[in-house]
Amino acid sequence: MRILFTIAYVGTNYFGWQKQQNAITIQEVIENKFFEKFNEKINLFASGRTDSGVHANRQFAHFDTNLTIKPNQICNALNSVLPSDIRILNAIQVDENFHARFDVKKKTYVYKTYISQTENPFLDKRALHLKNSLNLKNIKKVAKVLIGTHDFTSFCKKSSNDKDCTRTIYDIETIYDKKENTLDFKISGNGFLHNMVRIIVGTLIDAGNNKIDAKQVWEILSKKDRTSAPKTLPPYSLYLDNVEY
Amino acid sequence: MRILFTIAYVGTNYFGWQKQQNAITIQEVIENKFFEKFNEKINLFASGRTDSGVHANRQFAHFDTNLTIKPNQICNALNSVLPSDIRILNAIQVDENFHARFDVKKKTYVYKTYISQTENPFLDKRALHLKNSLNLKNIKKVAKVLIGTHDFTSFCKKSSNDKDCTRTIYDIETIYDKKENTLDFKISGNGFLHNMVRIIVGTLIDAGNNKIDAKQVWEILSKKDRTSAPKTLPPYSLYLDNVEY
Repeated sequence: MRILFTIAYVGTNYFGWQKQQNAITIQEVIENKFFEKFNEKINLFASGRTDSGVHANRQFAHFDTNLTIKPNQICNALNSVLPSDIRILNAIQVDENFHARFDVKKKTYVYKTYISQTENPFLDKRALHLKNSLNLKNIKKVAKVLIGTHDFTSFCKKSSNDKDCTRTIYDIETIYDKKENTLDFKISGNGFLHNMVRIIVGTLIDAGNNKIDAKQVWEILSKKDRTSAPKTLPPYSLYLDNVEY
Repeated sequence: MRILFTIAYVGTNYFGWQKQQNAITIQEVIENKFFEKFNEKINLFASGRTDSGVHANRQFAHFDTNLTIKPNQICNALNSVLPSDIRILNAIQVDENFHARFDVKKKTYVYKTYISQTENPFLDKRALHLKNSLNLKNIKKVAKVLIGTHDFTSFCKKSSNDKDCTRTIYDIETIYDKKENTLDFKISGNGFLHNMVRIIVGTLIDAGNNKIDAKQVWEILSKKDRTSAPKTLPPYSLYLDNVEY
């Protein structure tokens, strides 16, 4: 049967989702713990990779298994042996044609920041420290430019293999918590290029610092050149928030 | 001159505040980094100890120094060498008679919990995982019994050296976040005995699970016997939230 996992992880101690040689990854840990518990080798297919240091509130991955126990029992057994920074939140049986990557309809990422004079030790490697508050009006103007279907070549890592860089951004939401002085950027779309969210949020923060305006962002989009857009923000404040099928 | 630091720390990697042999503590790290930076040995006097694993949103500690630079500069210089789980939030010059421990007027602790089927990896070692939601009405009834001036012998670690176990609790607030399903217990008082907050919150959670009622808590108080009260909760969800002078 085919099982779909919903997984949460703190990415800090891992070299991203995808298995690789000589580096510990989330996929590898889960597959190894599965083998340890059930003596069966599985291949996890995730909704997409996450980079080194990136977190997930809800990542999705499917696999095929010969086990005949309830998905819920697999979930509990696995959580009992997984490290505390990785948790299987849910396990359900899915159709054998379901694919966690190819069937994605919508993906949502959150990039977390906070505004403070001094760094907050509780947000270390979990949110980006900003010293000055941002111009939210200008952020919203620039966000409006980016929402919609565009060629996002300027917002994609140069070495990326993506051939077609056209993607649709459904929404960009800025969630400001006055009490905590945190500002979350919530971005949803039909798919994202490598580093795309981190470059877009870098652009939005530049807009918040009045370094860039809506007109300039139109120009960056039309240039289709990575060097024209602002720098890529660090990975440790990025969260894969949800995937819809 | 005498300087008062406001300090935030994630307690996870430390054996509490107070210096001790063969174990790394927050006090030791700050004193050592101060020596590394300014070549001067200082003695930090905190508002009180925090146990192994306990966090601080705002701990206070004073020390005397022969430095003549601005407190603000000490703060910045120290933060540049401190590990990212300890931050000096503020430094001000205080009267030479001021004492961070003896002059405390009010202390506030927060004990963080969350209600969820599965553990949340982002709250690991930061909040207590509860599987069932709690009866907030009953918690408030029991809290009312504990607020005020009482002999808290039943709510103090047995091996403690405290002679007079009379303390005044000013307030117990339960802060429930419906969206995140988190429940914070915020307790303020003129001072706390060893493990007192962790035993009180254990009692409040028992009340939330309808295992204990207000009348029984009156009885526990009057017994003046640690074994009559519920168990001590783990330290890793406890935060020294603030100290007032």
